[in-house]
Amino acid sequence: MTVLDVTTASDNISMLMQEIGVEARAAARVLAKAPTKQKDAALLAAAAAIRADIDDILSANEADLIDAKHKGLSPALLDRLTLNDQRVEAIARALEDIAALPDPVGTRLAEWDRPNGLHIERVRVPLGVIGIIYESRPNVTADAGALCMKAGNAAILRGGSESLRSNRAIHDALMQGVMSAGLPETSIQLIPTTDRAAVGEMLRGLDGNIDVIVPRGGKSLVARVQDEARVPVFAHLEGICHVYVDAKSNLDMAREILLNAKLRRTGVCGSAETLLVDQACAKETLPTLVKALLDAGCEVRGDEATCAVDTRVKPASEDDWHTEYLDAIIAVRLVKGVEGAINHIARYGSNHTESIVTDDAATAERFLNEVDSAIVLHNASTQFADGGEFGMGAEIGISTGKFHARGPVGVEQLTSFKYVVRGNGQIRP
Amino acid sequence: MTVLDVTTASDNISMLMQEIGVEARAAARVLAKAPTKQKDAALLAAAAAIRADIDDILSANEADLIDAKHKGLSPALLDRLTLNDQRVEAIARALEDIAALPDPVGTRLAEWDRPNGLHIERVRVPLGVIGIIYESRPNVTADAGALCMKAGNAAILRGGSESLRSNRAIHDALMQGVMSAGLPETSIQLIPTTDRAAVGEMLRGLDGNIDVIVPRGGKSLVARVQDEARVPVFAHLEGICHVYVDAKSNLDMAREILLNAKLRRTGVCGSAETLLVDQACAKETLPTLVKALLDAGCEVRGDEATCAVDTRVKPASEDDWHTEYLDAIIAVRLVKGVEGAINHIARYGSNHTESIVTDDAATAERFLNEVDSAIVLHNASTQFADGGEFGMGAEIGISTGKFHARGPVGVEQLTSFKYVVRGNGQIRP
Repeated sequence: MTVLDVTTASDNISMLMQEIGVEARAAARVLAKAPTKQKDAALLAAAAAIRADIDDILSANEADLIDAKHKGLSPALLDRLTLNDQRVEAIARALEDIAALPDPVGTRLAEWDRPNGLHIERVRVPLGVIGIIYESRPNVTADAGALCMKAGNAAILRGGSESLRSNRAIHDALMQGVMSAGLPETSIQLIPTTDRAAVGEMLRGLDGNIDVIVPRGGKSLVARVQDEARVPVFAHLEGICHVYVDAKSNLDMAREILLNAKLRRTGVCGSAETLLVDQACAKETLPTLVKALLDAGCEVRGDEATCAVDTRVKPASEDDWHTEYLDAIIAVRLVKGVEGAINHIARYGSNHTESIVTDDAATAERFLNEVDSAIVLHNASTQFADGGEFGMGAEIGISTGKFHARGPVGVEQLTSFKYVVRGNGQIRP
Repeated sequence: MTVLDVTTASDNISMLMQEIGVEARAAARVLAKAPTKQKDAALLAAAAAIRADIDDILSANEADLIDAKHKGLSPALLDRLTLNDQRVEAIARALEDIAALPDPVGTRLAEWDRPNGLHIERVRVPLGVIGIIYESRPNVTADAGALCMKAGNAAILRGGSESLRSNRAIHDALMQGVMSAGLPETSIQLIPTTDRAAVGEMLRGLDGNIDVIVPRGGKSLVARVQDEARVPVFAHLEGICHVYVDAKSNLDMAREILLNAKLRRTGVCGSAETLLVDQACAKETLPTLVKALLDAGCEVRGDEATCAVDTRVKPASEDDWHTEYLDAIIAVRLVKGVEGAINHIARYGSNHTESIVTDDAATAERFLNEVDSAIVLHNASTQFADGGEFGMGAEIGISTGKFHARGPVGVEQLTSFKYVVRGNGQIRP
């Protein structure tokens, strides 16, 4: 009996998900040709509905929170799940911000003429259907759905089970906006079940009806998605970001950038995890930087030279160079100039974001050219690794892939392109 | 004993392949910073070496051909394997053509300033290491290796087993060019074994040391690669290309384009496989086009209306709309205007290349906008689906993916990009 039940349940999930995929593809065809005004009207109406529905949203969230506390969720997770007046207002404002972004769809990326008279254009088009798998952060429901819509894509959202009621309330508001603008109800679909089999179905791509998966959450979620997905994934597994301080650097600037890169927020993917110091400036720079970190409350794990600087420094192990702490901990080592830094990053980095602090232009260029990361910075904090800080308006995440979307994934990165060729009867000889 | 032998052999293959991956990654780091002149010098010297080594290349090819005939390879495959004076000269010239292309690496794709003074650039960088898995066409050894090198990538080549001697002789010439220019010997590696386990290792990505796989060959090769690869793949499984002839079209132009699209070469991915005719012009246009196809020696499989045109027409089955014939066969049906054509293509197409013939600009725009294919054409033959015809100089294939490389995959598509951010001490508030 139990076995039979399970089979039936998972068959039902499978059927439900296939249907969601078919509906999403149909919606995507409508969204692909929807005018900018119509998409923006949907987003603005959704923002208004979020504000109008604030009581419903907060009471749904309250119910989620009660269950989550019973389950014993950690304070950090509870905080991410929690909504209040300000956070709901921020959700509504984010929708308006996304509406205000330029519409990438239809943009001509290039155009040229061929000797035979053919005129070729490369034109931005939506990607199609985007699946978003995220942990229990209700704001992602609105952000992700809206970014997908702005770029003319249908979205299939699968949020963390602890936030299902909150997500539903927010999704209801989105749907009011979408439908008031005359767009399909299935433009943004929220998976109505917390059954984990639904995630498996999404990772298999719903019969070709999902074009890309974006996981938003911790490393274990991203790792599962990257391992199991049979469709492309926009994600970064981890951000082991480096700051390299060159001998020819301004020490005050180096300290400011380092402290900001490590400690402004330690839990974000662009926070620095390793400090590399040019051995040519071991005497003054290393102790100054290490003491500044320690005095700011940061744990320092260092190589031999770093341990010699201060008794509070703990010895680093090989593992430390590979670790994304996401905490007030940093690994520190001396390297042989910029080449040593480049080699260390090539070996231990995660191709996310790295910064060099130097006053030497040639050294900076070498670092910027040779470090193979999505974002490389000169004399600036790694914490600028963010779509908003890049001026992209909003991002759905940061990708360390080398394909298509690299770095912040904003509206533009949620598009593809096609070649439009115009002729007057050309045939190929 | 046998089991032990097999284990040992496959362990050896695995070790060999891992080593090839590590070497390729190291070469990629050198190639990424190699100046354009150095890469071009390597390609020009390789072209000279191909010409100088023509006797070695032809005798290696002769030996391959003898074995292949013993194995009973089909005439088409034997033809693809065969080299002669002209074909070797074409290989050398292709290398020179690739050297003459602009170098995409380092190109600034975009740049902008942020209010805080950060200057952000989006700069083209090589992809890294590209694996090419191809059937027994020796020219691919040179073409693919050269395209990868031009874009600053290391290449790992796995050619069909029947062409191993020819590939080796061509690869030797490439290596002379590469080494004379002072680039790493491992810039272009040819897998020295015909063991199929090597392909499996490549598809698993050699421990992260392959960034993309490009399969070049028939549908079964591409299907295997797409199914098994754990790294991104640039490919198209099939090209079920459509020509739609609208009621408001010039019948002479429609006939010329159709005959060219179907019959210029029937074995290429851009050849038309299905003709869709607007039902509003069923009376004159349909019979004219169908008879033109039949008279040109093309088999026609049609819907009811098409069968009624001529006794030589065979009835089409549901399968025919899904079929890439790669032969002088075409499926023909009436559709309800451009909308019917768009819907048919959405259902049966392979997102490769489709053409509309019409004199009505609004109808053309609708088709170009709403058909979701890598290439959409107005009043031109589908056989223009080719990197050379697009002016890209050379292509490694055509991709129907929506990511990164869509349409012809030329030198530019073999690159990625990174963000280079220049500051003067900016930290994030």
